[in-house]
Amino acid sequence: MKNKHSIIHVILTGGVGSRLWPLSRKSQPKQYLDIFDGKSLFEMTVDRNRNIADKVMVVGNIDNCNLSRNILEKTNTEYIDIIESTPRNTAAAIAFSAFAADPDDILIITPSDHIIDDRKAYEGSIQEAVEKAEQGYIVTFGIVPTKPETGYGYIEREGDDVISFREKPNQVSARDFIAKGNFLWNSGMFCFKAAVLLEELKAFHPEVYEKSRLVWANNVNGNLDLALSLDIPSISIDYAVMERSKKIKVVSSKFDWSDLGSFESVYDYLVSIGHAIDENGNMVIGTNNYTAFIGVKDTIFVYTPTANLILKKEFSQDVKSVYNALARDNSDLLN
Amino acid sequence: MKNKHSIIHVILTGGVGSRLWPLSRKSQPKQYLDIFDGKSLFEMTVDRNRNIADKVMVVGNIDNCNLSRNILEKTNTEYIDIIESTPRNTAAAIAFSAFAADPDDILIITPSDHIIDDRKAYEGSIQEAVEKAEQGYIVTFGIVPTKPETGYGYIEREGDDVISFREKPNQVSARDFIAKGNFLWNSGMFCFKAAVLLEELKAFHPEVYEKSRLVWANNVNGNLDLALSLDIPSISIDYAVMERSKKIKVVSSKFDWSDLGSFESVYDYLVSIGHAIDENGNMVIGTNNYTAFIGVKDTIFVYTPTANLILKKEFSQDVKSVYNALARDNSDLLN
Repeated sequence: MKNKHSIIHVILTGGVGSRLWPLSRKSQPKQYLDIFDGKSLFEMTVDRNRNIADKVMVVGNIDNCNLSRNILEKTNTEYIDIIESTPRNTAAAIAFSAFAADPDDILIITPSDHIIDDRKAYEGSIQEAVEKAEQGYIVTFGIVPTKPETGYGYIEREGDDVISFREKPNQVSARDFIAKGNFLWNSGMFCFKAAVLLEELKAFHPEVYEKSRLVWANNVNGNLDLALSLDIPSISIDYAVMERSKKIKVVSSKFDWSDLGSFESVYDYLVSIGHAIDENGNMVIGTNNYTAFIGVKDTIFVYTPTANLILKKEFSQDVKSVYNALARDNSDLLN
Repeated sequence: MKNKHSIIHVILTGGVGSRLWPLSRKSQPKQYLDIFDGKSLFEMTVDRNRNIADKVMVVGNIDNCNLSRNILEKTNTEYIDIIESTPRNTAAAIAFSAFAADPDDILIITPSDHIIDDRKAYEGSIQEAVEKAEQGYIVTFGIVPTKPETGYGYIEREGDDVISFREKPNQVSARDFIAKGNFLWNSGMFCFKAAVLLEELKAFHPEVYEKSRLVWANNVNGNLDLALSLDIPSISIDYAVMERSKKIKVVSSKFDWSDLGSFESVYDYLVSIGHAIDENGNMVIGTNNYTAFIGVKDTIFVYTPTANLILKKEFSQDVKSVYNALARDNSDLLN
């Protein structure tokens, strides 16, 4: 028996993937690349939620919406576009999707650029979240951590109650979190009833609520007005709602998960699916040409037709500096 | 006033340049690559001796002779081909050139893959060598060393007399050589009267002499017979003659010289002519595409359309291991 409300999968396609440059470009963000096992991360995201959701909404800029359309039409997936004219961060993006839905609809918000491996465990967690959302909670998904990762935020919890949200920790804090045992990785995925999220946003950040409402009210076939959009404060949903609302619950999830947020996590993922490394842990991404590494270890060679990267794995966070330097120079190599 | 004998520049084109793989290939050995300042090393070798020699002889296999021909015809240089059917090392190659010349001709033997920068100093050294060759000496060229290089052989000398030839030393010996002050780098260049070299070869290695003579006697337009050639012992001119004859003199030479025998020496040379390196000493060879290096130092990225090399500079000698491994696998990537 079907509930009268819909379950809507809302895919946030924002994010440039600057830490995966030169693979990820403005014209080809990481979620649309085909390097992960033949399918793009976006396509895998759609597939993963196909049995769960009744509808798909895609929120993002015009370029990403076009790239999304190619994939969604290829797979005959019906969807609704919300086309942002300027990035306003996750609070506004999620508000648009909630305004676009019916008040009783259940929204599952996911990024489009994560890897999740255990489909059954994933569907179980979603099921649990939908039930809590129907009870009026805003659900965040916490991943049971497998190592003291410093690249992720953490959720401190007691049962399904959230005690605190923690920023990316240093190595000492991360080890401490793991030792304590009640910390989860913050996945950036959420589930809630549209009306509940909007109530909480209105209560804790009325300006974002009001201005997002106005932008959505003036949408033309899902296209949002630039001038009105620029007026919305650019803040995250975590800051606007999650860290303030008393209606938050966390679903502790055991599936294999990675945000592929850096070449280090891409490397780990690729190794896990059998991508070749040499005897010193060196890896080639982006070309099948034979590449010899001599005198270097744990180094990633990223080839693209217009730019290359040679990266010692543990310096993966520094890719952003190269990206920023190219951005300052207005380099074509970011496009 | 011209001497009645000719001065012949004999260019040895043998050598695969395996330490410069993947830049250097069987079909395109390093001496024919255009990466060194626009001209190939072979062309620079011809140019450098153009004012000195009356004739040019090219000794090498058929592929190298074809590559040489392209350059020599482009520059309207007349030359004689000696086309080896199988590599028999320098003793035989040099013997062929001496048999091909008149007995009184002065031969200047040079590799085709070295860099020499000071043209005037070079011509001065050649002039000095030719005079000694006319007096009946076999002249070897020693380069005044600028550092305790372990990649070169050394010549211990007293004035223009050779005391000993030394193999590539270890670091301690190399420093000792430099401290002693009477050691020169062995350049692999020679100058002698054809008849004198042949007399000494006959005296010290009659088998190479006799079999090389037979091969040359049966040449067809410079092409040497394979079956006869295979019968010649494969040994170096250093071992067959230089280290044994009492007629050896050394010309101490002050020009800038490199055998470009490894990527480390290629790197040093390219830096000296202004090729870019980043702030950590990393260098790109073979592509103009932007390449970022993160977390690595003194690393050379060698791009070719079919294979790449990522090499920590001080491991340059290990390129040969990769080459040998590919050779064992009969890899196309060596061609």
